[in-house]
Amino acid sequence: MKPTRRLSDADAASPAGHICRGEAVGHIINRTLKPAIAATSVAILNPPERQLNDDASQAPLSADDLRKLDAYWRACNYLSVGMIYLRANPLLREPLKPEHIKRRLLGHWGSDPGQSFTWVHLNRLIIRDDLNVMFVSGPGHGAPATLSNSYLEGYYSEVYPDRSNDETGMLRLFRLFSSPGGIGSHCTPETPGSIHEGGELGYSLSHAFGAAFDNPDLIVATMVGDGEAETGPLATSWHSNKFLNPVQDGAVLPILHLNGYKIANPTILARIPHEELEALFIGYGYKPYFVEGHDPQEMHQKMAATLERCIGEIRAIQQHARASNDTTRPRWPMIVLRSPKGWTGPKEVDGHKVEDFWRSHQVPVLDPATNRKSLQVLESWMRGYKPEELFDADGRLIGELREIAPKGERRISANPHANGGRLRRALHLPDIRDYAFEVKNPAATYQSPTAVLAKFLRDVIRNNMTNFKLFGPDETASNKLDGVYEASGKRWIAETKPEDSDGGALAPDGRVMEMLSEHTLEGWFEGYVLTGRHGLLATYEAFVHVIDSMFNQHAKWLEKAKQELDWRAPVPSINLLITSLVWRQDHNGFTHQDPGFLDVVTNKSPEVVRIYLPPDANCLLSVADHCLRSQDYVNVIVADKQPHLQYLNMQDAIVHCTKGIGIWDWASTDEGHEPDVVMACAGDIATMESLAAVEILKAQFPDLKIRFVNVVDIFRLMPDTDHPHGLSERDFDSLFTRDKPVIFNFHSYPTLVHKLTYNRTNHENIHVHGYRERGNINTPFELAIINGVDRYTLAIDVIDRVPRLRDTGAHAKNWLHDQVIESVGYAHAEGIDRDEIRDWTWKA
Amino acid sequence: MKPTRRLSDADAASPAGHICRGEAVGHIINRTLKPAIAATSVAILNPPERQLNDDASQAPLSADDLRKLDAYWRACNYLSVGMIYLRANPLLREPLKPEHIKRRLLGHWGSDPGQSFTWVHLNRLIIRDDLNVMFVSGPGHGAPATLSNSYLEGYYSEVYPDRSNDETGMLRLFRLFSSPGGIGSHCTPETPGSIHEGGELGYSLSHAFGAAFDNPDLIVATMVGDGEAETGPLATSWHSNKFLNPVQDGAVLPILHLNGYKIANPTILARIPHEELEALFIGYGYKPYFVEGHDPQEMHQKMAATLERCIGEIRAIQQHARASNDTTRPRWPMIVLRSPKGWTGPKEVDGHKVEDFWRSHQVPVLDPATNRKSLQVLESWMRGYKPEELFDADGRLIGELREIAPKGERRISANPHANGGRLRRALHLPDIRDYAFEVKNPAATYQSPTAVLAKFLRDVIRNNMTNFKLFGPDETASNKLDGVYEASGKRWIAETKPEDSDGGALAPDGRVMEMLSEHTLEGWFEGYVLTGRHGLLATYEAFVHVIDSMFNQHAKWLEKAKQELDWRAPVPSINLLITSLVWRQDHNGFTHQDPGFLDVVTNKSPEVVRIYLPPDANCLLSVADHCLRSQDYVNVIVADKQPHLQYLNMQDAIVHCTKGIGIWDWASTDEGHEPDVVMACAGDIATMESLAAVEILKAQFPDLKIRFVNVVDIFRLMPDTDHPHGLSERDFDSLFTRDKPVIFNFHSYPTLVHKLTYNRTNHENIHVHGYRERGNINTPFELAIINGVDRYTLAIDVIDRVPRLRDTGAHAKNWLHDQVIESVGYAHAEGIDRDEIRDWTWKA
Repeated sequence: MKPTRRLSDADAASPAGHICRGEAVGHIINRTLKPAIAATSVAILNPPERQLNDDASQAPLSADDLRKLDAYWRACNYLSVGMIYLRANPLLREPLKPEHIKRRLLGHWGSDPGQSFTWVHLNRLIIRDDLNVMFVSGPGHGAPATLSNSYLEGYYSEVYPDRSNDETGMLRLFRLFSSPGGIGSHCTPETPGSIHEGGELGYSLSHAFGAAFDNPDLIVATMVGDGEAETGPLATSWHSNKFLNPVQDGAVLPILHLNGYKIANPTILARIPHEELEALFIGYGYKPYFVEGHDPQEMHQKMAATLERCIGEIRAIQQHARASNDTTRPRWPMIVLRSPKGWTGPKEVDGHKVEDFWRSHQVPVLDPATNRKSLQVLESWMRGYKPEELFDADGRLIGELREIAPKGERRISANPHANGGRLRRALHLPDIRDYAFEVKNPAATYQSPTAVLAKFLRDVIRNNMTNFKLFGPDETASNKLDGVYEASGKRWIAETKPEDSDGGALAPDGRVMEMLSEHTLEGWFEGYVLTGRHGLLATYEAFVHVIDSMFNQHAKWLEKAKQELDWRAPVPSINLLITSLVWRQDHNGFTHQDPGFLDVVTNKSPEVVRIYLPPDANCLLSVADHCLRSQDYVNVIVADKQPHLQYLNMQDAIVHCTKGIGIWDWASTDEGHEPDVVMACAGDIATMESLAAVEILKAQFPDLKIRFVNVVDIFRLMPDTDHPHGLSERDFDSLFTRDKPVIFNFHSYPTLVHKLTYNRTNHENIHVHGYRERGNINTPFELAIINGVDRYTLAIDVIDRVPRLRDTGAHAKNWLHDQVIESVGYAHAEGIDRDEIRDWTWKA
Repeated sequence: MKPTRRLSDADAASPAGHICRGEAVGHIINRTLKPAIAATSVAILNPPERQLNDDASQAPLSADDLRKLDAYWRACNYLSVGMIYLRANPLLREPLKPEHIKRRLLGHWGSDPGQSFTWVHLNRLIIRDDLNVMFVSGPGHGAPATLSNSYLEGYYSEVYPDRSNDETGMLRLFRLFSSPGGIGSHCTPETPGSIHEGGELGYSLSHAFGAAFDNPDLIVATMVGDGEAETGPLATSWHSNKFLNPVQDGAVLPILHLNGYKIANPTILARIPHEELEALFIGYGYKPYFVEGHDPQEMHQKMAATLERCIGEIRAIQQHARASNDTTRPRWPMIVLRSPKGWTGPKEVDGHKVEDFWRSHQVPVLDPATNRKSLQVLESWMRGYKPEELFDADGRLIGELREIAPKGERRISANPHANGGRLRRALHLPDIRDYAFEVKNPAATYQSPTAVLAKFLRDVIRNNMTNFKLFGPDETASNKLDGVYEASGKRWIAETKPEDSDGGALAPDGRVMEMLSEHTLEGWFEGYVLTGRHGLLATYEAFVHVIDSMFNQHAKWLEKAKQELDWRAPVPSINLLITSLVWRQDHNGFTHQDPGFLDVVTNKSPEVVRIYLPPDANCLLSVADHCLRSQDYVNVIVADKQPHLQYLNMQDAIVHCTKGIGIWDWASTDEGHEPDVVMACAGDIATMESLAAVEILKAQFPDLKIRFVNVVDIFRLMPDTDHPHGLSERDFDSLFTRDKPVIFNFHSYPTLVHKLTYNRTNHENIHVHGYRERGNINTPFELAIINGVDRYTLAIDVIDRVPRLRDTGAHAKNWLHDQVIESVGYAHAEGIDRDEIRDWTWKA
């Protein structure tokens, strides 16, 4: 570790002020040094870059460079306007007429010029320094900027040959754009060069950091919309810099696009004093540079100088860190680009301010097809870009402008990281058999499934130190996955203290990513897999709902990419381990009981979602192994962290999980015949209670023919016509019979099973037990009883449903009812611990 | 409006520096003034409060005050420890023995001392200044602090007489605490004085601002956990200060509890340099005060001085604003309390650091029941608080300490705002008949339902200018609710520009709350209703999933409060208007198509959730009226913003919505007889398509007996045994028949209808059409066709399902198939606008 330096020293020593490592920071921030810091902070908060921006002599662009760069930018802007308006006459070869205008005007103009402005300036430095740059477009509905650049770079036409690099192709691009169902007006999976869906807002920065992790040469330039910046997920994702290792990871260069407006309102960050804005980003740990203005010529010089400086600082930070293996958190640069909304568009239309106002957010001139004056405004706006100087007779960008765009994979639109499946390397996975929990007899021993998984994950990490990450919101240890710390610590690029090595150690190169923000974790994870790497996110069941919407959007991305976009290579799956399950949330209570994420998942396309409920540790291993090998899915694994009974040895577990559903002969009494009743179950706790019910029934009714069916892969319940994992009608009927009662004990809300099986032959005999929203629970077993997923209630249900037991079972029913009452009564006694209850109930 | 002042002037002029209103800020931040600002920002970023904290002479507490205050705090801490550990010997009247220790140790100690510390200091100023203070406890699992204080203030025993204010009651409190199912270890609805559920983290500040809105005399002291502070929702909710009007609203005093650790990790904010932390909160627009240290005596003086100063500033800000009607955004004070985690607990246990480390997050001493040394550590820790000096012979807090707690409703635990139903005033609602859209003939005219609703909401606002708010994420106008701006503008307490009056005007007293953060809006809204006021939140259907988890938690809160807590008075409902619906998201595409929020809602307790799908504008009015009158629900209303056909006049709409489901005779041909087929529908677009299908069928098969059933209240589909709105088996069968085909056209995912109706007599004949995840859509009508919710596919399904049409319908089927193909083909032509398609298809 490097000797600790004072902040002011660090500032002086390197172009980017390194923040001092924590050991000594406590001292620095102590009372006696505070006056010194007060002085230091002046320097920090008024850094030299302010002078840079104010210094008119900073003009790195020659007149010729400036002319070309501006021309290229005008070409982008011209194309953006063309996409919104034109269905004919794409190059304005003739005067604009109403019939050239689209009949439905859609798309978003507001952020396009600023985004293109940034892109073309990035191009300059990509060429100059041979940079590897990705672009993440946060202001979602500004796709014309990305599309224009991608089209001008030629990559768009390579991917979509029908939108060729000539007048015909340009017209086709224009007509398809935001023609409903054509090309989206926000960045979609169809957009080359993008890993970021621009529909829902808030994830640009976390996606960017996910892309930058373990990609040391990559610079992820990220436009953050000032609207998007108001969302919670975005607001906290600035702190991702505390997890980015300057030695091993690439860089993220955030560019806050402060163009001032959302759809119909100013943005908050545009309406606070400059010094608050500056303080905010210093507070987030960045070194903010401001590029502010509206005159393109001045702005080009400012942006060129600022970007040069930022790239220089990034390189200096990385060189320093890598030369000296100093992982101290640097103060990474960022840019605040304060340019007018709808920059270069009409200043005023019909007496309303448009440029630099929310009225330029979408379509600035509303009725050019029907209003002559509007048509003139549009024509004069478009001709202002001088298309005749930008495109040749074929409609292709002129040669001298083509030259200032990067080539090949250096083109931002063609950056291979943005089609991460192309870079995907399969994980080097250890053999799960080596991690098996020994099961000699089923249901005889207890073990925590996640603790077993942890050993496997530990070695997955060891074998894949640069392309696998484990994510968790401060719960890795709580979820009993702390075995992974033997392989690697928790990523931490902030201050440290000596005691941080006690327990899972903090480490600048840790492979475990912990931050108390499910949004940021999921965003990192998505960015990481979309650039071709692997991971697993473990989180509390009740709170995975925090990322419902992110899951939805990622599943939609996968569906589009997989089903419609051959050019996108498959990416590793998102693997979500849902743990700390509802049935062990007696102590945390009602708020921590919510198994409903599965309902959200089952609504998404069957092509991209998978749900597994392994009943024990070896099944969890088998399922996890399968998921880590898969691609283009969101895999949801539901497995508790508490010790549970173990049933299957490794070989049986592999067979069982591969089938996804199966009869457990050792728990059944039907001996291959038509049973009296089917006891079905899905989920570890549900399985245990079903097995216990079978034990009770065996004792009470030795002649009863019971078939025990365990479901791991919940989509096996669906018809094969509706889901690739679905069972045919015949297979389903052969498992569940056509007319016998099925007592289905389910981990989650019971209606989910009905939703999946409503059209099965025997559906009216499927009786599902599961969680329902009720409060006031005292023990895990009482939680089971109150919800009717306990052994006694299950057994009673069997007696009620099997005709021949209705009379003979009366005595047993009474006994079972007594057991329920006694259990609840016993549980109400204070101070009974959970394990004791569980042991007691199991033995009962 | 006040004349604009320079920031530095403002700082000099008033105790809290007012930020200058925007009109002139643009000038201030221009190039020429930048050097001046650079100087100013030094003053801002090193404000005088830093000196305050460093000034040892600031000691407002007399020796006697200090002694009592510390004793009171020790009593809180003693009780907190007692809750975690003791099942007997609550006052340590005898030496501690293993059998006095609970057999299962649960609960969270870490944040308790800091929270109680803050509470007791608030008490001092409540008494001194007769303040009206609420407390929001963000560090969720620190309920012992809230419980201790509530118990010492006596209010806890008033609410729960079995936990009386004596030794018996104390023991009962100890034993119930975190005994599974007893008293939660985080703040739950059962906690008096709390409106904030402490399970999921991230919403303390937005809840606090919601409580403060329109409560001018209220101060909401809000502990923000430094773990919680990492969540996205919390990170952006600091910006709520841009929406708080110092004239009309109360104050929020955030206290960031920087105790450094989460469950098993340091927190980010505790591991950044002091100057970054300070800059961050200045950037968020606050004036941060730091109270840092570990010595209780010093910390008491610091906290007393700092709280005095903060309360003084709040009062000064309010007096200034109210005397001069100056709504300029003030720089509200906030406190950073950097105290050790597990403060006053064991410093070290078994060689591990505990105090000031994450090991004190939950239970610091793990095994006192079985380890003699641990028992000694615990006993010596507890005796360190000197319980014998704090509690009298009866186990009651001694008199001189009782005196330093506030009395009656000034007790934080008894603050009536925290049981907001007690303060609830019914809305003054205008008569919906006055806003009716005229419908002479069904299905003859188009209208935007939300535009009609807007007029009603406009007058709801007008009539209830201090207890109703409309919330929306920058989409009020986009959702065609901009009619409300006639009554009131958009709340904005930040810089403004002259052009801001164009369109819905920004206004410091605006009743419309717009911020691009669904989390913050929902948090404000929850805080607002839990303190007894009313509102409605309108949001895009696809992105309401952003707040799935907040919805879940609020529904759970309501379920608990309503079903189990008689002492909590009913609160106004949360009303969510879901609009910009899936069926009109052809242009925004796949990402904007997600009607699955309803699945999440149907998983929650039937006692607290309601879903309405009004088919037209008058039904929307009727439903909205009903929802605004209701209490203790989450009402979800699904209604599109686009123009739709209108069916029912106001009187019929009221009757129909009151029934929630009904036969539309004018669309049916069964004339009261058993029909051949039931055409059922729910949702505006689904209803239109079903009606169109009926028109086609009438023309093709004049003898066909069709029954048309429209569903507004989706829970009518459930059995009356499962939901209070459910239909009895008999009523359901009389509507849907026992054996005839039911072609159900549904707004959302089709499986939801199966989930609700799976056990109905006629279920196997219910064929549901609805949204499925598929991409590549060109027009709204193609979206309908691809999902099979269009008129042609519905009609084809009828032909397939009605036995006697199977032969005679062959010709019609062919014709219908041709229509489908033609529609899709036609739609594929570029540039066709949506209205045209709709008109065309309707007339087809």
